[in-house]
Amino acid sequence: MTAQVIKSKAAVAWGPGQPLSMETVDVMPPQAGEVRIRMVATGVCHTDAFTLSGDDPEGIFPCILGHEGGGIVESIGEGVTSVAVGDHVIPLYTPECGECKYCRSGKTNLCQKIRETQGKGLMPDGTTRFSKDGQPIYHYMGTSTFSEYTVLPEISLAKVNPQAPLEEACLLGCGVTTGMGAVINTAKVQPGDTVAVFGLGGIGLSAIIGATMAKAGRIIAIDINESKFELARKLGATDCVNPMNFDKPIQDVIVEMTDGGVDYSFECIGNVNVMRSALECCHKGWGESVVIGVAGAGQEISTRPFQLVTGRVWRGSAFGGVRGRSELPEYVERYMKGEFKLDDFITHTMKLEDVNHAFDLMHEGKSIRTVIHFD
Amino acid sequence: MTAQVIKSKAAVAWGPGQPLSMETVDVMPPQAGEVRIRMVATGVCHTDAFTLSGDDPEGIFPCILGHEGGGIVESIGEGVTSVAVGDHVIPLYTPECGECKYCRSGKTNLCQKIRETQGKGLMPDGTTRFSKDGQPIYHYMGTSTFSEYTVLPEISLAKVNPQAPLEEACLLGCGVTTGMGAVINTAKVQPGDTVAVFGLGGIGLSAIIGATMAKAGRIIAIDINESKFELARKLGATDCVNPMNFDKPIQDVIVEMTDGGVDYSFECIGNVNVMRSALECCHKGWGESVVIGVAGAGQEISTRPFQLVTGRVWRGSAFGGVRGRSELPEYVERYMKGEFKLDDFITHTMKLEDVNHAFDLMHEGKSIRTVIHFD
Repeated sequence: MTAQVIKSKAAVAWGPGQPLSMETVDVMPPQAGEVRIRMVATGVCHTDAFTLSGDDPEGIFPCILGHEGGGIVESIGEGVTSVAVGDHVIPLYTPECGECKYCRSGKTNLCQKIRETQGKGLMPDGTTRFSKDGQPIYHYMGTSTFSEYTVLPEISLAKVNPQAPLEEACLLGCGVTTGMGAVINTAKVQPGDTVAVFGLGGIGLSAIIGATMAKAGRIIAIDINESKFELARKLGATDCVNPMNFDKPIQDVIVEMTDGGVDYSFECIGNVNVMRSALECCHKGWGESVVIGVAGAGQEISTRPFQLVTGRVWRGSAFGGVRGRSELPEYVERYMKGEFKLDDFITHTMKLEDVNHAFDLMHEGKSIRTVIHFD
Repeated sequence: MTAQVIKSKAAVAWGPGQPLSMETVDVMPPQAGEVRIRMVATGVCHTDAFTLSGDDPEGIFPCILGHEGGGIVESIGEGVTSVAVGDHVIPLYTPECGECKYCRSGKTNLCQKIRETQGKGLMPDGTTRFSKDGQPIYHYMGTSTFSEYTVLPEISLAKVNPQAPLEEACLLGCGVTTGMGAVINTAKVQPGDTVAVFGLGGIGLSAIIGATMAKAGRIIAIDINESKFELARKLGATDCVNPMNFDKPIQDVIVEMTDGGVDYSFECIGNVNVMRSALECCHKGWGESVVIGVAGAGQEISTRPFQLVTGRVWRGSAFGGVRGRSELPEYVERYMKGEFKLDDFITHTMKLEDVNHAFDLMHEGKSIRTVIHFD
């Protein structure tokens, strides 16, 4: 039995700055090495909003946004062996082919196998699987989870425990893994370490969870919005600091609080000035700062090189340094074992039809994560 | 028998921008925890020239410059147990007390035990051991090796193999260890790695030696002065590149040469623009850049944070990350075993009386290292 074209409900971004439009689109069968999945749930992330705004120089329209999903395999293309119909999967915008120079290096999760076509909104063969009345619609981040059905390369799917509720586990497809992994995988925070987390959105709160899991001795949460502090404390923050309450740079405040600076800091906003503060609040001799946030196009970070020569380290992290296929399933297991919770993040749930409202809530700072339930 | 004041020949820096002046100064006996040494040889380093120029905001005058020396213990103060009269020692501008938070961390060589007094040109008790006709003369970097006799804290001396000729081994007191250690200790370059070294002065050439010792697979030497290339090749550089020969940024040239970038790069100049090039020529996913050079006061490094988020790491190194008392003697042993040579660095030798000529040769780019012989 060969898979057929499927009619699918999808939120289409016809152009930058326009609200998403609910459409019934055609989703082609998966081609060789591809998999078609039925989406169960998807989070709505700032990156989706960034691309929709038109500020993302790499945004391509029309497209179907969404990259933080969880779904079930509906059909598989020729040669697909690692997943089967019915498997529960999390789409990966950072794939893991296991074969490219990057995967083989053992030093990074930034698989480059399909980077070029993914960046152009296409499947690896250079075409798209979505269309509306014959007009092609582009993929987004290789995932396009704002659609009831979507097609992905096999290497872009993590097969996860089918017991895991995808309505929560979908958050491991982006934000939660990004923050938690930066602490656990990239920085490798050790028990007793002092940690500073700048920005208490979904990523920052996940970094706090990661620091708690790593048994950090002190976790300093920094935000100018004090309404975030309660949840930060609940998740493990030991100190909450609002930079607006001081008349000196926040890095100086933190260096004083910690008798010399923190062992690790995490920038979870995408603000280049905060990135500098995050570096400079690190302890001389060994403090490391990890940039997680994505800055606007063309913006630059800067500092005096003396900060580095005296022992601080500046690094970055993408998708928490997590190799999606080989390591994400383990994060799902840890979640299933109760090592961390995801429901704290989910402030709203709604149907795909209401996705524009999810963007509004995010822009208004009223949500941490909205999860879309397909049904 | 108590040690007495000694008359010592010294090159005194009476003020910024003035030539050094040969004087006979008084050198007090070592106080508790201090050691007086007779200098055998000292290198003349750019940092001495930087402070003498007046551009060093922390320069204090009058002082006795010099920090790359080798000498023999002449007398010891109360409580000194780790060195004895007659021991061969290398002065350490980065001491190792073994007790401070930094030493105990096991993560850095930046002992802070006597940082404050050392920065003020004083011994740990807040006074100076040098004077001329009753006028105090300040110490410099805690070492002041441009004097026949000098006093140092016990924690600022590495006791080394007495078989090692101090006329060469003195270079391990600064430049050679700084470059070599950055490669071996800080970056931990592994066999087969690709390395780029920016700037072929004493530090850069030492970094090349370090990369050769670490069995790097490819060592790319970069300088705008092609007369440096011959020695760079002799020391192990596999490629020599002059950025002036290209009409695109040198980082792009190196990324192309290496199919994606280098595993490690080292900035050995102190130029903030070169520091950026050094970072950006690193391989996506894992490349690490080490800042060794010291930039001018107030200058800043910058880059797009995307460079870090996609896996590059920016760090620094001071004195090669080497803990002077516990690790420098091993470098001397490796030199004695012939693992590396030092005579290639020594382009000139002279007496202390000619030290101003040594500065001239350095400013004119005619010397790698001049070594002053006391006799």
